[in-house]
Amino acid sequence: MQLISLEHIRAAAGRIAGAAIRTPLLPQHWATGAPLWLKAENLQPIGAFKIRGAYNAIAALSEPRRQRGVVAYSSGNHAQAVAAAAKMFGVPAMIVVPDSTPRTKVEATAAHGAKVIEVPIAQRELAAHTLADQHGFNLIPPFDHHEVIAGQGTIGLEIAEDLPGTQVVLVPVSGGGLASGIGTAIKSLLPSARVYAVEPELAADTAEGLLSGTRVDWPVEWRARTIADGLRAQPSELTFAHLKRVIDGIVTVSEDEIRAAVRVLATKANLVAEPSGAVTTAAYLFRRDELPEGRTVAVVSGGNIDAALLAELLRA
Amino acid sequence: MQLISLEHIRAAAGRIAGAAIRTPLLPQHWATGAPLWLKAENLQPIGAFKIRGAYNAIAALSEPRRQRGVVAYSSGNHAQAVAAAAKMFGVPAMIVVPDSTPRTKVEATAAHGAKVIEVPIAQRELAAHTLADQHGFNLIPPFDHHEVIAGQGTIGLEIAEDLPGTQVVLVPVSGGGLASGIGTAIKSLLPSARVYAVEPELAADTAEGLLSGTRVDWPVEWRARTIADGLRAQPSELTFAHLKRVIDGIVTVSEDEIRAAVRVLATKANLVAEPSGAVTTAAYLFRRDELPEGRTVAVVSGGNIDAALLAELLRA
Repeated sequence: MQLISLEHIRAAAGRIAGAAIRTPLLPQHWATGAPLWLKAENLQPIGAFKIRGAYNAIAALSEPRRQRGVVAYSSGNHAQAVAAAAKMFGVPAMIVVPDSTPRTKVEATAAHGAKVIEVPIAQRELAAHTLADQHGFNLIPPFDHHEVIAGQGTIGLEIAEDLPGTQVVLVPVSGGGLASGIGTAIKSLLPSARVYAVEPELAADTAEGLLSGTRVDWPVEWRARTIADGLRAQPSELTFAHLKRVIDGIVTVSEDEIRAAVRVLATKANLVAEPSGAVTTAAYLFRRDELPEGRTVAVVSGGNIDAALLAELLRA
Repeated sequence: MQLISLEHIRAAAGRIAGAAIRTPLLPQHWATGAPLWLKAENLQPIGAFKIRGAYNAIAALSEPRRQRGVVAYSSGNHAQAVAAAAKMFGVPAMIVVPDSTPRTKVEATAAHGAKVIEVPIAQRELAAHTLADQHGFNLIPPFDHHEVIAGQGTIGLEIAEDLPGTQVVLVPVSGGGLASGIGTAIKSLLPSARVYAVEPELAADTAEGLLSGTRVDWPVEWRARTIADGLRAQPSELTFAHLKRVIDGIVTVSEDEIRAAVRVLATKANLVAEPSGAVTTAAYLFRRDELPEGRTVAVVSGGNIDAALLAELLRA
């Protein structure tokens, strides 16, 4: 299986400049025990790192192919990323979402100019593939795609450039595109740094898979239990192969730890993080004994949290 | 009266590198009507821009003078800034606060290693001056000081470098150090850009003063009414002289507009802002007809808000 290389990631960095921002690496003086920096991907234009991979995948298409438009199935940050990236290129975007998707998310995606197609949840993937096959739209998957992985890997390039003394990088893992990309960049540029994946205990299929050496399936009902709604997917064969190569360890965090980390990020770092974006801070705060020591970067992957949930977590 | 120049600000930038961070200038794609960028000073180590001026003032002291230690009277962000900056230099800091100061703020200041001295509010300034006179501590005022103004002005340098096409800069005004410094930098580097000050309606002494051309005093009881607790001071002769030279206009915002802007910053920009830090976004959102058109930078000056208040504003 062909895995991505540093050269893929460097090419992606060239493509996404101007579409995604170079997010700040923020030193955290409240942190005790080890120096902590936050890579604030929640400050991206769509509020999450997904713009990097989606934009890179669309940018890598040939012009005639791109003009046919793009299709994605997602109700989360990937949907908004594909819609926003397609708009930047001026090409049509179709986003297939489950018909149970909250109005606010449908409207946020439509606000980027995408056509939102609501289908029963079980038909979502098939509907997207049908659109791609019948109308020639380019399917942009959320993680199972070399250019998507390379786009997310640009975060690792920036970390290595901005803090060459980084010793530990904490990355959320779900479908594995983000961890695959960042891990590849870090292992190439800072070979002595350790890359740790972080996963909710309630969706810990990757932890189980990496420990056994083989990808495992957890029932979707199990994974759906975590509050970290961006971390309910599981790796593909492609991302799992990357993870096996570049991840040094994996820690899991509890729901209470995730909730506490959202609160700490808001009150100590002045950053709004969604639960999925807060898992790495949770690992830093509560699982330090399972992590290597040293200068630590926690990737805050996104900030798209409902105002009511944020308010609830602030009062906890 | 000697006003600060671009050279003072450039010198300050050299001193504070490594102590304050270069905050990101974040493009906001949700903004409609005019392109908006946020200068996110709430991401500074102490959560507010004050670290720039305080650190610069302490750095500008001669080594023998600095070793005697510093004193400040403040219960807000300036207190934490002086305490944090003194700690970086390894010199003692005394912070005089009103005896009505909430425990959390006293503890936050003490956590930086400062000695916190609680006195009745009316004796605050006198107590600080007495400490300075009797023990040789260097008094670091919150805004009425050339090096403090120059330190805050480094924000203007960064805006001019990062977005040379800036057409409008919105800056909160209270004691006027921030607006004086940023205005001086912007007027020097981007002479065609307009610098607008933003003030709460309930503490609009500067708006009244600039319109009449003369500094005016508002009773402290009036100014204390605004939720923007960092904007309850008023300019000194020194800062007012700067403001008259560099401010093109001033707009005031209501309490409801400030509250709404805190919510918008949290939900659309993923930034936690304190009410004082949200007034510029409030002006952008609600007073557009009073502002020049064009590429606009809103300075989000700080993010130190109580978790309970933030939760309340998120539910509004």
